[in-house]
Amino acid sequence: MRKLVFLFLLGYFSMEVLTAQSIAKPDVSKIVLVVHGGAGTITRQNMTPEKEKAYTEVLQQALQAGYTILKKGGTSMDAVEASIRIMEDSPLFNAGKGAVFTHEGKNELDASIMDGRTLKAGAVAGVKSVRNPITLARKVMENSEHVMLTGEGAEQFAKEQKLEIVDPSYFYTEARWKQLQQAKEGEKIQLDHSGDKGSNNEKIFTEGKKFGTVGAVALDGYGNLAAATSTGGMTNKRWNRVGDAPIIGAGTYANNKTCAVSATGHGEFFIRSVVAYDISALMEYKGISLQKAADEVVMKKLVERGGEGGIIAVDAKGNIAMPFNSEGMYRGFIKAAGTPSVLIYK
Amino acid sequence: MRKLVFLFLLGYFSMEVLTAQSIAKPDVSKIVLVVHGGAGTITRQNMTPEKEKAYTEVLQQALQAGYTILKKGGTSMDAVEASIRIMEDSPLFNAGKGAVFTHEGKNELDASIMDGRTLKAGAVAGVKSVRNPITLARKVMENSEHVMLTGEGAEQFAKEQKLEIVDPSYFYTEARWKQLQQAKEGEKIQLDHSGDKGSNNEKIFTEGKKFGTVGAVALDGYGNLAAATSTGGMTNKRWNRVGDAPIIGAGTYANNKTCAVSATGHGEFFIRSVVAYDISALMEYKGISLQKAADEVVMKKLVERGGEGGIIAVDAKGNIAMPFNSEGMYRGFIKAAGTPSVLIYK
Repeated sequence: MRKLVFLFLLGYFSMEVLTAQSIAKPDVSKIVLVVHGGAGTITRQNMTPEKEKAYTEVLQQALQAGYTILKKGGTSMDAVEASIRIMEDSPLFNAGKGAVFTHEGKNELDASIMDGRTLKAGAVAGVKSVRNPITLARKVMENSEHVMLTGEGAEQFAKEQKLEIVDPSYFYTEARWKQLQQAKEGEKIQLDHSGDKGSNNEKIFTEGKKFGTVGAVALDGYGNLAAATSTGGMTNKRWNRVGDAPIIGAGTYANNKTCAVSATGHGEFFIRSVVAYDISALMEYKGISLQKAADEVVMKKLVERGGEGGIIAVDAKGNIAMPFNSEGMYRGFIKAAGTPSVLIYK
Repeated sequence: MRKLVFLFLLGYFSMEVLTAQSIAKPDVSKIVLVVHGGAGTITRQNMTPEKEKAYTEVLQQALQAGYTILKKGGTSMDAVEASIRIMEDSPLFNAGKGAVFTHEGKNELDASIMDGRTLKAGAVAGVKSVRNPITLARKVMENSEHVMLTGEGAEQFAKEQKLEIVDPSYFYTEARWKQLQQAKEGEKIQLDHSGDKGSNNEKIFTEGKKFGTVGAVALDGYGNLAAATSTGGMTNKRWNRVGDAPIIGAGTYANNKTCAVSATGHGEFFIRSVVAYDISALMEYKGISLQKAADEVVMKKLVERGGEGGIIAVDAKGNIAMPFNSEGMYRGFIKAAGTPSVLIYK
């Protein structure tokens, strides 16, 4: 009988411990959220006060959306998804609504998300009718056995998951359509915000400022990291090209042991350099800081290899890094105090 | 005048140096080629002598094809491509001709290749009518500005590159079709050679031994590394799922500074663990040997995370590693002496 009572009490206290853990109070004093809206040739001389204001406002909204979640004790996964949905729904950024056009005049969207706590990840590529690809990437992670789905299969999965499906015409914006025509005239593939320096096509590119992969990384009150990235890819892209945004390790990576990273830039170079994971590996294996690791990859390796762009990152202690080797990068961050900071130029 | 003669001589000798470099004699004494034909539940009790002989023969042919190239002073890129084409053309392996069927009864092929000298890479996913996806991946690397093309776009590019296009029925094999029916009956997604241990479906899986992602890594006489991987993915896969094979950093990675890696196994886990690049990063940042780095990732990290499979790798000095945490892995290697070694079990 005594033994039974003992076992009963043991079981009771074990449950107490478990319950206490699962409803652990978040320490919201350490929350951090960082977002980006793409990197490239973004200079003051190419910007108008109106444009600057418009970009700043959406970046602030994106920060606010994620912050509200984190502040209430929500997860970093919920926060990065919410931030990205705001940017996907804006026509200003090259993701979701504002996606650029392919060579064939279509919009093909890529996105990925990774949970630093579980190392689980989800990604989609070549999606044409899903309003918020980042939410689809998350559904792939949570409700399928897979990490990456593509094309029509990914869309079918989106329907099964009852995500919001839109007519492909939803993604039509006049500005992007004009950019495609300009890119075709220049017979060039247009990358992000970047100009083709030194060529006659520079004007086409530097005027194409309304581009931008979007991304978000966050640290929540439970100490968990998350990263997410969403994009429409390159204007005038062909052959169902896939860039780094949906590639885990290249465009997106998160691991509670090290950091959460979202990249933006010339995707091909970012894939070949496994950019996001390389920053994590440098921290883990060389024991260097997030800032040093991020600078090593973005300001040194990528520069040597000719890869233009940048990254945003946050580590498990809440340190932030936002290096870019291009002329500008739409970026912003918010911490526990709740004041959003938005930056555009160097 | 003296100055002119000096400049002329300087120019002459510079050219000499350049020419000597570009026609540098390869040191074929250090050539190495390693291939794999997939990992999973491959045990002696599930194998017949005939099957064993058939697999061994194709692996030997694949090794011989690459070896002939390396021995003549050819490049590691040419060698890995040639080896993989042999395995793609065999119905025994889950790549090319022997690809498994998707849930919808189709064959969707993925492949990637990376050049350790230049860090250039090419990849394709969801290809349905290209006889040798590995050659398409190489064409993407060499003749496009992109790293990764998918689906119909990749096929269109293949046609433009005048690659051999086959009717999708080319990929039909009775054995694979039966495996799909079995997998559907079991309502399971069938992975590589793996059984679903402990479940009633074990028989379905352990009898599905004719699977296998294929891969090759090589070191040539110039000291250059290359890696390549090709697969039909998982039997009964849905939603245009993409595994690790076409993901640079996950299924394939090569860098002259460190090593060349090709992976095989449960792709989702390999993507999340950025397997191929992680081995390279461990060598570069922690200064450990190829064998130690490969064991750390395959025998420790992947095991802890539940990811079944293995990798083949060669480093810049010609050291080989072939760890796997499954019951077996079709694998083989050949060195300068020219005697192929083929292994299947632990």
